[in-house]
Amino acid sequence: MDSFSALPLVVLAEKFAALPGIGMKTAQRLAYAVMEMPQADAEAFAEAILAAKTQIHDCPVCQNLTEQAVCPICSNVKRDKTTVCVVEGPKDVAAIERTHEYDGVYHVLHGLISPLDGITPDHLRIPQLLSRIKEGGISEIIMATNPSVEGEATAMYISRLCKPLDVRVTRLAFGLPVGGVIEYTDEVTLFRALTNRSEM
Amino acid sequence: MDSFSALPLVVLAEKFAALPGIGMKTAQRLAYAVMEMPQADAEAFAEAILAAKTQIHDCPVCQNLTEQAVCPICSNVKRDKTTVCVVEGPKDVAAIERTHEYDGVYHVLHGLISPLDGITPDHLRIPQLLSRIKEGGISEIIMATNPSVEGEATAMYISRLCKPLDVRVTRLAFGLPVGGVIEYTDEVTLFRALTNRSEM
Repeated sequence: MDSFSALPLVVLAEKFAALPGIGMKTAQRLAYAVMEMPQADAEAFAEAILAAKTQIHDCPVCQNLTEQAVCPICSNVKRDKTTVCVVEGPKDVAAIERTHEYDGVYHVLHGLISPLDGITPDHLRIPQLLSRIKEGGISEIIMATNPSVEGEATAMYISRLCKPLDVRVTRLAFGLPVGGVIEYTDEVTLFRALTNRSEM
Repeated sequence: MDSFSALPLVVLAEKFAALPGIGMKTAQRLAYAVMEMPQADAEAFAEAILAAKTQIHDCPVCQNLTEQAVCPICSNVKRDKTTVCVVEGPKDVAAIERTHEYDGVYHVLHGLISPLDGITPDHLRIPQLLSRIKEGGISEIIMATNPSVEGEATAMYISRLCKPLDVRVTRLAFGLPVGGVIEYTDEVTLFRALTNRSEM
């Protein structure tokens, strides 16, 4: 923000700009919007930020974010505890829940193995996953990491650790996205769609 | 945000979604980003919101936002106090300052006359503008409101109030935007560009 703007506004715009996908122009617009808010709304906004940080912690079972002792999915008796879906982050849990088709539980890694970014397996919640499997009662691990280099490497790495523990390890299917167009589909996806073709 | 997410995260996402131009998807992404921030950064963010609201007030002269007693533009002895540029909001001051070509001062209306939205001249800082003119020392008022229905109406309204006060009232020029393409320019702009044509 320009130096002739009020300093607290510049500081606030910089905070917004530090968020992912928010450029300096948008950050300035948001800072002005905060200025135009009623005082009570601005206070509620500031409190929501602090509340999110202080009240939310990782579920001791699945490592997903929760404000409860154990997250609602892990504490739900109707969920199938024998199937564990392993995902990169809480956003992936939200995405899979939106399908309303999965009734198992999750394990949130909080990242993917990425040696170039300095993220080694030690940074992820892999030991917690192995402990859950060793405690027994789990028959299948679904690797639901992104189809990226890091996602594939993490899935491979965890799969190799899990197999000796006498548990089935599966991977999400890859293929054409529903509503996708073959003409515009990249070669790798098309190759996967061909190899994973199914009987009609 | 989905009901199975941690409640404080849902609340925070709603706060972000209340900001202009931020949809629910982006708001969720930003809420997760706050969760991933170090505690100190989240606290600094919350403080910046409160600081912007408590430390910033309207400059008693030009009504622009400032954290100082009188804003840096009004208190700058090098600025030409005889020329006052009337704008809708603080963002417009920032935009005009970026040209580095204007050395007069400003008057911020904090809105435009818009009867449909219930914004009448009483809601704007028009009395403060008239007081400044009556105090003397101002020779020109530049109406720099947007070329919209509300902007034009506000410019016309203020212009009529100012003229009896023995002050020159001017309006920003309208025409082709620099780098614009005639082929894609709307008729109204093209008509303005034609009528306001200048000698080469």
